[in-house]
Amino acid sequence: MNRSSEALPLYIQIAEGLSEQIESGELAPGTRLPAERQLSASLGVTRMTLRQALQILTAEGLVERRQGSGNYIAQAKIERTTSRLNPFTAGMEKNGLNPGAEVVLSEQRPATSSLAARLRLPVSSELYYCHRLRLLNHQPSMLEKFYLPTAFFPGFEQLELTDTSVYAQLEAHYDVRIQRAEQSIEAVAASAYEAGLLQIPTGTPLLLERRVSFDQDDRAVEYAKDLYRGDRFRFLLSTSSD
Amino acid sequence: MNRSSEALPLYIQIAEGLSEQIESGELAPGTRLPAERQLSASLGVTRMTLRQALQILTAEGLVERRQGSGNYIAQAKIERTTSRLNPFTAGMEKNGLNPGAEVVLSEQRPATSSLAARLRLPVSSELYYCHRLRLLNHQPSMLEKFYLPTAFFPGFEQLELTDTSVYAQLEAHYDVRIQRAEQSIEAVAASAYEAGLLQIPTGTPLLLERRVSFDQDDRAVEYAKDLYRGDRFRFLLSTSSD
Repeated sequence: MNRSSEALPLYIQIAEGLSEQIESGELAPGTRLPAERQLSASLGVTRMTLRQALQILTAEGLVERRQGSGNYIAQAKIERTTSRLNPFTAGMEKNGLNPGAEVVLSEQRPATSSLAARLRLPVSSELYYCHRLRLLNHQPSMLEKFYLPTAFFPGFEQLELTDTSVYAQLEAHYDVRIQRAEQSIEAVAASAYEAGLLQIPTGTPLLLERRVSFDQDDRAVEYAKDLYRGDRFRFLLSTSSD
Repeated sequence: MNRSSEALPLYIQIAEGLSEQIESGELAPGTRLPAERQLSASLGVTRMTLRQALQILTAEGLVERRQGSGNYIAQAKIERTTSRLNPFTAGMEKNGLNPGAEVVLSEQRPATSSLAARLRLPVSSELYYCHRLRLLNHQPSMLEKFYLPTAFFPGFEQLELTDTSVYAQLEAHYDVRIQRAEQSIEAVAASAYEAGLLQIPTGTPLLLERRVSFDQDDRAVEYAKDLYRGDRFRFLLSTSSD
C-alpha cells in the first residue's frame, strides 16, 4: 500500500472494542454499563476519551443514554427485509412487536409536477396526502408520508387507519392489491417537526425509504416517503453477481 | 380517519414546495438561489421560516450552502443499484465519475468473536484491517472499513490500492472472485474521525452498508463497513410481491 498505516484515534479503538462486545452478545441488550468513572478506569482511558467513544456507540444505536440513570446496551436494531414486499404492519408483527398508528395529517392537494411524474398522473390531479406516525410497543418508530390519487380511492379520508394497515384498507374497499414497488433508501437528518413526532433530537439520522407502489394492473397507486428511526432499524439486502 | 387534519408547520410547507421544484427539475443543479432576504419576501415568509426550510433541504442534500456565496441547488444524489453486485469503482465509472482512493489505515489484528462469526473463522484468526477513503472527482465521498482473512490473502499489505479496486486485486493475485454478498443498510451519524476524512460536519447522516462477501467457493472472504455520505448517495431497490 502506498500510505503507511497510522494508528486509529484512541476513542475509535475503544468504540470498536465495545461495539464488538455488543455485536457478539458479550454485552447483552438492557445491560447497564458501569459508571463513566469506573469504566474509563477499567479501560485505562480518560473520561473524555470514553465519552467520545460512547457518543459513537449512541449514534450507531448500540448504546442508549437514559436520563439520570446511565448508559445501557440498546435493543438490537429491527431488521427489515427488502427482497420481497414487506408491509410495515405485517413485518413488525412477525418480529413480535405490537404496531400502532396515529394519523397526524390528512388533507387533499393537487399534484405538483414531480408528484405527477412519480404517480404517472396529469399535473394538478387531486391527491390525498397523509402523515401517519407508526408506533411499536407504543414507542414512535417510523413516520409515513404518503400520497394516493383521489380518483382511485374516493372516500379514503373516511377510512380507519389507526388499527388497520393502509394496504389492507385499499384491498378491502377498492380491490387494489400492491404487486410491486420501486424503492430507494437515503440517510437524512430529522427536521424539528419529524424529531418532535419521533421523540428524538433534531438532526438524528433517519432512513428515508421512498416508494412508488404499483397494483395488480401495474397502476402507480401510492407514493410514500417513510422515515425510519436510524437507531431502531436496519434494512437487509441480499445480492448476487447475476 | 380518527384524527382531524392539522396544518403542517409553515417551514415544512415551504421546504416541500422547494423540494418539489428541485425534484421536478424546475430548479436545476448548480442554480444559485436568490439571497435570503429576496427569497423570503417572494415566498411571503419571514427569514426565520425560510432558514428553517433551507436547513431541511440542506439536510436532505438538495441544497448546498457555499461559504460566503449563498445557497445552490445540489447535484442529484448518485444512485447505487443494489439488486446486483455493484462494486464502487465500476459503479462510479458508469456514472461518469472519476473514482480515486487513499489508504488511511492498514494493519493486522486478531478476529474478535463477532468478526470471527461474520467471517466464519476461528476466534483470533489474523485479519487485515484497512480504512480506505474513496474520492469522486477528487471529493471525499465514501469511507471503506474492511477486514480480510490474512490466511487467504498473504502479502495483501503490499498491494497497490490507490488506483485499483480491491476486488480487482483479489482476482489478479489470489484468483478470488466475489460471487454474492449479504448486505444491510443503516443510517448513522458521522463521528469526528469519519467527518474529518469525509470533510463534512460531525453528526452528518451517513448510509452504513455492512457487507459479508463470498467468493466462487462460497467462502466468506471480506467483511466491510462502507460509509456513504448521506447528501451524495441513494440506494435503489426494486421489489415484487413474490
